[in-house]
Amino acid sequence: MRCVDVIKGADVIAGYTVYVDLIKGFIDGKEVIATTMKKEVDRVKAAVETALTGKKVALVSSGDPGIYAMAGLALEIIKEKGVSARRPGCGAPEEGSLTVEVVPGIPALSSGGSLLGAPLTHDFACVSLSDLLTPWELIEKRLNAVAEADFVMVIFNPKSKKRNWQLNKAQEIALKHRSGDTPVGIVKSAMRDAQDVTIVPLKDLHEADVDMLTTVFIGNSASEGYLDFMFTPRGYGKKYDLKS
Amino acid sequence: MRCVDVIKGADVIAGYTVYVDLIKGFIDGKEVIATTMKKEVDRVKAAVETALTGKKVALVSSGDPGIYAMAGLALEIIKEKGVSARRPGCGAPEEGSLTVEVVPGIPALSSGGSLLGAPLTHDFACVSLSDLLTPWELIEKRLNAVAEADFVMVIFNPKSKKRNWQLNKAQEIALKHRSGDTPVGIVKSAMRDAQDVTIVPLKDLHEADVDMLTTVFIGNSASEGYLDFMFTPRGYGKKYDLKS
Repeated sequence: MRCVDVIKGADVIAGYTVYVDLIKGFIDGKEVIATTMKKEVDRVKAAVETALTGKKVALVSSGDPGIYAMAGLALEIIKEKGVSARRPGCGAPEEGSLTVEVVPGIPALSSGGSLLGAPLTHDFACVSLSDLLTPWELIEKRLNAVAEADFVMVIFNPKSKKRNWQLNKAQEIALKHRSGDTPVGIVKSAMRDAQDVTIVPLKDLHEADVDMLTTVFIGNSASEGYLDFMFTPRGYGKKYDLKS
Repeated sequence: MRCVDVIKGADVIAGYTVYVDLIKGFIDGKEVIATTMKKEVDRVKAAVETALTGKKVALVSSGDPGIYAMAGLALEIIKEKGVSARRPGCGAPEEGSLTVEVVPGIPALSSGGSLLGAPLTHDFACVSLSDLLTPWELIEKRLNAVAEADFVMVIFNPKSKKRNWQLNKAQEIALKHRSGDTPVGIVKSAMRDAQDVTIVPLKDLHEADVDMLTTVFIGNSASEGYLDFMFTPRGYGKKYDLKS
């Protein structure tokens, strides 16, 4: 609800073209700064510069703007430029200073998780397989670490047309530490028209239909499937009678 | 907005007494199943049994019901009881079968993260320090794994009156792998009246005011502080000029 208020109250909307299109019902007549993929830096710089002229700018992300999204880049640019900034309610605005509010959203790990059931009710780790800005060696080290320590693994950016082997490598790493029957939830375009939800055993993950808009949830050693659901018990069943 | 609809449309509200109290404006006149802490199993069993009588039951959690919360226990009990269940829109309801919708929310990692700035714009791991249902050895193994692999660490249930040394141990583990100046964000009661947000260097974490309603964000080796914000660069600064 806060998002809708902020978007409606903004003078300028900045965002990835696809996301700006998703909210077009809310932004009629407003100035728009939209750029395509891999043009994030130009977009966020333009958003910060426009805000410095005194306009109210809403920089939109999908899901949560703080999770693999633009809030971090906005703050990084603000710091690099040496611009003064504060949170709302932390003092009166000054000339040349920005008020920065990060409005939290529902991240793909929550929306996707909810469609699967409850895969994240115990410790979990999020790893992006995109090696555009992170060396693959570090990604692989992280996959190994959390597979070995039995975290539920949430895989972001699992596959694109050019990056087609990384998810198979993640599957291979997970299989070193957990059973081939471990449930894996695959959620495509959560809460959008093209939504698709499936659960497969870890040993079949390489055959699953996965793209850039998919989030993959690899269960831990306790995760279970039941009917169309996947969930991760927290341990109540060991301490309490859940049945009667 | 979906949460509000579901709560308004429910016959019965089930939840932890504190959370039921937070939504009392929405539940006037409804039947309530409220139990205190450590009575989760009784509460969720009663919710499932009440739903089986044909009533619409809303089981409320704070934050996101799928993250360290009750959605997992509900599905576990449904499976243990052998009750048939499906997601909404997946076929017509049958006698003795439940329709289960998990409504995603904004988890503490998102609400707390937004108040700090953007600590989670790169790979992160969530670890609960509660050893009520998880052996401490496994918790410590997980802390070591993600500290070593340079994940941002989100610590849930960091401290209670009885559990007062675990967070210091987590600090000690993190200090083995990252600098004492690493920013640590401490968010108490995010978005509630008692909200409190501070950022301290990792070396001073043991002196911070932390309780059960606090979420602790330990930065990775790239995380930065700036004015009242904390953020984790994703790597754009190495590839692009962010300043001019």
